[in-house]
Amino acid sequence: MSHSAISDVLAGKYQLDSKVTLKGWVRTVRANPNFAFINLHDGSCFDPIQIVVDNTLNNYNEISKLTTACSLSVTGTLVESKGKGQSFEVQAEEVDIIGLVEDPDTYPMAPKRHSVEYLREHAHLRPRTNLIGAATRIRNCLSHAIHNYFYENGFQWIATPLITASDCEGAGEMFRVSTLDAVNPPLKDDGRADFSQDFFGKEAFLTVSGQLNVETYACALSKVYTFGPTFRAENSNTSRHLAEFWMVEPELAFADLAAVAQCAEDMLKYVFKAVLKERMDDLEFFDLRVQKGVIERLQKLVDTDFVRMDYTDAIDILQKSGKKFEFPVDWGVDLSSEHERYLAEEHVGAPIILQNYPKDIKSFYMRLNDDGKTVAAMDVLAPGIGEIIGGSQREDRLDVLDSRMEEVGLNPQDYYWYRDLRRYGSVPHGGFGLGFERLVAYVTGIQNVRDVIPFPRTPNSAPF
Amino acid sequence: MSHSAISDVLAGKYQLDSKVTLKGWVRTVRANPNFAFINLHDGSCFDPIQIVVDNTLNNYNEISKLTTACSLSVTGTLVESKGKGQSFEVQAEEVDIIGLVEDPDTYPMAPKRHSVEYLREHAHLRPRTNLIGAATRIRNCLSHAIHNYFYENGFQWIATPLITASDCEGAGEMFRVSTLDAVNPPLKDDGRADFSQDFFGKEAFLTVSGQLNVETYACALSKVYTFGPTFRAENSNTSRHLAEFWMVEPELAFADLAAVAQCAEDMLKYVFKAVLKERMDDLEFFDLRVQKGVIERLQKLVDTDFVRMDYTDAIDILQKSGKKFEFPVDWGVDLSSEHERYLAEEHVGAPIILQNYPKDIKSFYMRLNDDGKTVAAMDVLAPGIGEIIGGSQREDRLDVLDSRMEEVGLNPQDYYWYRDLRRYGSVPHGGFGLGFERLVAYVTGIQNVRDVIPFPRTPNSAPF
Repeated sequence: MSHSAISDVLAGKYQLDSKVTLKGWVRTVRANPNFAFINLHDGSCFDPIQIVVDNTLNNYNEISKLTTACSLSVTGTLVESKGKGQSFEVQAEEVDIIGLVEDPDTYPMAPKRHSVEYLREHAHLRPRTNLIGAATRIRNCLSHAIHNYFYENGFQWIATPLITASDCEGAGEMFRVSTLDAVNPPLKDDGRADFSQDFFGKEAFLTVSGQLNVETYACALSKVYTFGPTFRAENSNTSRHLAEFWMVEPELAFADLAAVAQCAEDMLKYVFKAVLKERMDDLEFFDLRVQKGVIERLQKLVDTDFVRMDYTDAIDILQKSGKKFEFPVDWGVDLSSEHERYLAEEHVGAPIILQNYPKDIKSFYMRLNDDGKTVAAMDVLAPGIGEIIGGSQREDRLDVLDSRMEEVGLNPQDYYWYRDLRRYGSVPHGGFGLGFERLVAYVTGIQNVRDVIPFPRTPNSAPF
Repeated sequence: MSHSAISDVLAGKYQLDSKVTLKGWVRTVRANPNFAFINLHDGSCFDPIQIVVDNTLNNYNEISKLTTACSLSVTGTLVESKGKGQSFEVQAEEVDIIGLVEDPDTYPMAPKRHSVEYLREHAHLRPRTNLIGAATRIRNCLSHAIHNYFYENGFQWIATPLITASDCEGAGEMFRVSTLDAVNPPLKDDGRADFSQDFFGKEAFLTVSGQLNVETYACALSKVYTFGPTFRAENSNTSRHLAEFWMVEPELAFADLAAVAQCAEDMLKYVFKAVLKERMDDLEFFDLRVQKGVIERLQKLVDTDFVRMDYTDAIDILQKSGKKFEFPVDWGVDLSSEHERYLAEEHVGAPIILQNYPKDIKSFYMRLNDDGKTVAAMDVLAPGIGEIIGGSQREDRLDVLDSRMEEVGLNPQDYYWYRDLRRYGSVPHGGFGLGFERLVAYVTGIQNVRDVIPFPRTPNSAPF
């Protein structure tokens, strides 16, 4: 059943006048009594290929009645295209109809513009559309570029666990994972659920980050990263939140904040270069139909040095900007999207790596700076989206880590294994987190992360 | 804080007499009053590098007292090694002690042989051992080779969902995912839990396979694969089972069983070639210390054609073998490990792709053969392990699919979206599943899958 990919044919990998067999689905058919043009698509690239069918074919009558989404096997000769656009088309010698469409008038993916909401309700058929097909190929290209970047630079991929019964993770905004009866769980004397009888012998949850786990591997193998699913039981119905999403979390040993920031800049540039090189067909669609300027934005990011800026300086800039912001700007506040975008888009006009945030708005594990009031944290702010990466150098001094944990009300004993990394050959280390769906949304210009993941999980919705 | 990877130094990427800075952890120290030898390891490759330190260094006294796992930064000159084994060592000019080991006598990863059970209890420190470090690098190499194989062959990576409230999945051996109160969930009038008030508005579970989901993308983009976590709430305390593990599931449109089998053979050979080329250092360790012959076994798999064999013929061979098997062999039974290994190891002496199994021991979605009693299923049996891959051509005929579902007691309406793929441009398609941890175990010779995943999740155990 050997056949060629349409991407290879359109890329000129076969000689003119050679015979090819293509398999795919009908996008459109234009037929008259003498000949028919079929646009055939197989998902290997953005474009379908044009098939020319003469009425001399035995089954021309059936062919001329084909509708969108019928599946075909076409054998024919590769010829120069007479129309504009593509260089090649296929003069069919045989068209085998593999599968028809039941009642074409009610086919849910008829070739017209559908709303993204409608497409989500038909998530099993939406990869057949230009929008979702192109987003899938871009997603694939970005994911592969991320793995390549890390592999080429000596990082080890670490599959940190998704289910965790570690005392480290609070139960807030986490999903419980259980096999206990939902109505009548075994109870302890105090009336609480007896999780010692649950599958894992303890109450277990879905992880919200692999960072603490992956630090254990960084402190043994120097350069590591996670790329896996992460979960938030947050009741957020926004265009930037999913209950299940994919995160990339590199962690580098023998690295200070500057090294972590450089890694973030290098990685982003590497993956943007890859997508510009490998998926221009899909990017052109997004630039034309979804968000004008996405290609130029990526190109600019690749060509521009990211600007390093201290949080304290950023506050100063915002206060002196003369801009009216919705949220007030004072040293100590967490910046909101309007502030981040002003800095990146209006003040600097380039991506910014904002560094050294007040400790009170950041996590306990971030390394305390010598000023005693800021930590070695960083966010990468990109024009057009705001924060795309967040990271930090980690606190590698056991005594400082312990006081920070006590300060925020954590019990150091619950973190015994995290503390062990600081007891046995501690090293300066750090890393960052990149929400993969936000990256895909940024590259494509798609507004809602629900449309860059195959089957989005959100409050009240986990079908398919 | 720029420094070089030990892997690059040992691979000869730097010239003799050049100055290098290395950062890593002490493996061993041998010191006398005049000089010391330090084996320094950074996880970038199997071997540590030897650092030679003269007593002329200011801090020689501290250096000579270093113990396993202390972290160092070493700057020195790259010189030829006088000892056997490696070509290079470093004559130190500066040794900065970064982190010491608290109470070296009780350091849990002291340089001696630890049992795998002990290592699992210290899963946060075990990547510092030769065994787990080497397994991690092999795992990384295999994972990258899998992504590369699919990328180069035009497959799109699809992140199928982990949480599902689809009616398709039975609740047997699945983990429930919930944010309802564990003791007092909201109840419906009939006394059952009211999952309409749960996070997803329905009872939700962790997926046991991405296959049905990924078929929807194959029927739009032709060649796709999943590579992600999968879950089984099975109370199996065996060396081959985990509650959370990673699966690779390619799915090919316009493919019959022969095409699926060829893809499985090609992919396995591709990834075995990659690991033989890129991780010989770690493989030599496994061959020497874990399982004699793993390298030869991989090499043979790469060089040998996989044998195709029908289930029916295999039964015949087993019955005529004259072997006493623990489990009886009759047409219709599921083969057990002893049968599979006899076929692959003794009868054929090569990997076998066993095909066309009785429909009653296989899943409803596998394509019914014309004989009406077998389905187009396949298992890849490898010498030394037995089944490593299972797959099938899928039933693409709606009427046959519906009768098969009814036969096994499923409600076709629950599968409306799976059925839609057969209503709208159905195509022959199929794929297979590869348990990633079993692959890593096979390549390394490690006996228990708990030792090839960073933090194993098993009954009564999900710490860290």
